[in-house]
Amino acid sequence: MLTATYAGDRTIAIAEATEEPPAPGQVRLQVAYVGLCGTDLHILHGNMDARVRTPLVFGHEMSGTIDAIGDGVEGWHEGQQVTVMPLAWDGTCPACLAGNEHICQNLDFIGIDSPGALQATWNVPAEVLVPLPDDMALDAAALVEPVAVAVHDVRRAEIRGGERAVVIGGGPIGVLIATVARAFGAEVAVVELDATRRAQVAALGFEALDPREVDQVGWVEEWTDGAGADVVFEVSGAAQAVLGATALAKVRGTLVVVAIHPTPREIDLQRVFWRELRILGARVYERTDFERAVELIADGTIPTDVLITKIVPLAETGAAFEDLEAGRAMKVLVDVQAGQEASA
Amino acid sequence: MLTATYAGDRTIAIAEATEEPPAPGQVRLQVAYVGLCGTDLHILHGNMDARVRTPLVFGHEMSGTIDAIGDGVEGWHEGQQVTVMPLAWDGTCPACLAGNEHICQNLDFIGIDSPGALQATWNVPAEVLVPLPDDMALDAAALVEPVAVAVHDVRRAEIRGGERAVVIGGGPIGVLIATVARAFGAEVAVVELDATRRAQVAALGFEALDPREVDQVGWVEEWTDGAGADVVFEVSGAAQAVLGATALAKVRGTLVVVAIHPTPREIDLQRVFWRELRILGARVYERTDFERAVELIADGTIPTDVLITKIVPLAETGAAFEDLEAGRAMKVLVDVQAGQEASA
Repeated sequence: MLTATYAGDRTIAIAEATEEPPAPGQVRLQVAYVGLCGTDLHILHGNMDARVRTPLVFGHEMSGTIDAIGDGVEGWHEGQQVTVMPLAWDGTCPACLAGNEHICQNLDFIGIDSPGALQATWNVPAEVLVPLPDDMALDAAALVEPVAVAVHDVRRAEIRGGERAVVIGGGPIGVLIATVARAFGAEVAVVELDATRRAQVAALGFEALDPREVDQVGWVEEWTDGAGADVVFEVSGAAQAVLGATALAKVRGTLVVVAIHPTPREIDLQRVFWRELRILGARVYERTDFERAVELIADGTIPTDVLITKIVPLAETGAAFEDLEAGRAMKVLVDVQAGQEASA
Repeated sequence: MLTATYAGDRTIAIAEATEEPPAPGQVRLQVAYVGLCGTDLHILHGNMDARVRTPLVFGHEMSGTIDAIGDGVEGWHEGQQVTVMPLAWDGTCPACLAGNEHICQNLDFIGIDSPGALQATWNVPAEVLVPLPDDMALDAAALVEPVAVAVHDVRRAEIRGGERAVVIGGGPIGVLIATVARAFGAEVAVVELDATRRAQVAALGFEALDPREVDQVGWVEEWTDGAGADVVFEVSGAAQAVLGATALAKVRGTLVVVAIHPTPREIDLQRVFWRELRILGARVYERTDFERAVELIADGTIPTDVLITKIVPLAETGAAFEDLEAGRAMKVLVDVQAGQEASA
């Protein structure tokens, strides 16, 4: 079978691998679609070379069907549609013992720290499986993982119906957070520099602000009758956005840090103090986030058709990253089975 | 009567003023003691000249007795010992309407935005009064306001019994936070650069760490069996302390921003994200914090004798600030009645 592998040195190799039977406790999945994301791009850029062991079969946003079931696995059947919550925790560290397994101090993020989904069949422990409805389209289902990220971010913010949220950054995760926040009852405005993305955001029914054209602070103040936003999601990763974000939040409002900030960022702590703001880190997801994400895709809340820009065969994984990098795509999926027959 | 007044231009004037009867809804207090604090020092340094109107009778940490009661005021009697919660809110702004009157968007902080306690008698609205036990020493009672700050900070952190807290900065507020956190059931370590202050902290039974001698991160990790601190209080105001503070907190731990940071500070958002940390601003207090502060002084929890370095007559207010500035004092009280007879 064919795999897409990060080979180090900014290179993706389409490599042959041998299909294995599932070990006890595992299932073998026939992978249908794999979504490419910003973390994968970080891997490809070598930013995570200290963490990943090459060659690495990567990919952690996926959908597929159960192909074979290992000894001792119960409650699943062959042909069942599933996705994977790609986290394996040790269960013994202080974070796990406190009930925060999803951010285990020794977390194995499957697809980064161990082999991922960009292969025709993929053996995973049964514990990571999340069931999908039988009638869910598997391309849409490949979005469950990023939608679960958004659900986690929105739950972390404890958004309530009628609240107003600002999302800074209108890329795939920003749009998903905006969509999920709206599904939780919030009104949402999205701040985005890129005109194409702003148009997509506006087409989905959100306020789309160009921070170079609009005085964000004044706009939010008017929008919220002088209060400020209940929640601000920082999804852009930009230093300037972080510095300005605190000015958008109401007294006792919340700023959720979603983006990766590789170096320390300046924050207006005077504003944090003055308004008794709350800044929350939000990382990955818990099982309940995955379950909610499946529901939100199943009921049509998530505009998967708008988000999936392109579907490419496995052999074109490298080219797909170039599209992502150039900002030409919201979400690119790899059709993992397309082209596998040549390898059979 | 005599008042201590900020006259602008780094100057304190001991000025004559006329005693007035209380207006309807007011009481007149005979002021006993007034504590000087870091905010008063900021006023004296001119850092708050854009906010204060000079000449300003300042001072907002006080104790006293009711001297006269204005029309329409009920529930108080002459001679009663009281302190003042020096906040006046508008009751109509979004923060007030949401129940956060203590950080009203148009807050009048009495003693900064309007006249304060450094005068022989002081007329205040009855709503700001907080009753004191009849047998409470009025010098100790002048610490109710800073203790209420500490109670607010600790309540904001939602500390529970058995948790471990690190307080960065062992000045008066740091020591009070440590003491209150311990009263709430936490074990507390204090990080402090100054050897004299470290000795005071240790004498009160806290771990006292010199960050130049001890690897704080390693120490906290060992102290907490690899978890990290449940809560970190940033009370130092130092940029370096803020940058390092996130490394001390456990997964889903809390960092409370207590100190004033006049310019933006670098924060390790990668750590905030990775451990899903929570950063909270904490400002002033609510009435419940004042009531708890009175109890903690009444039951001897607060080491008022250690904290009160010095008591000076009103005429020496200026010199007392020099002691504070030089770090020669934890808390200096002004005995407002001493020397008033000369003015009578």
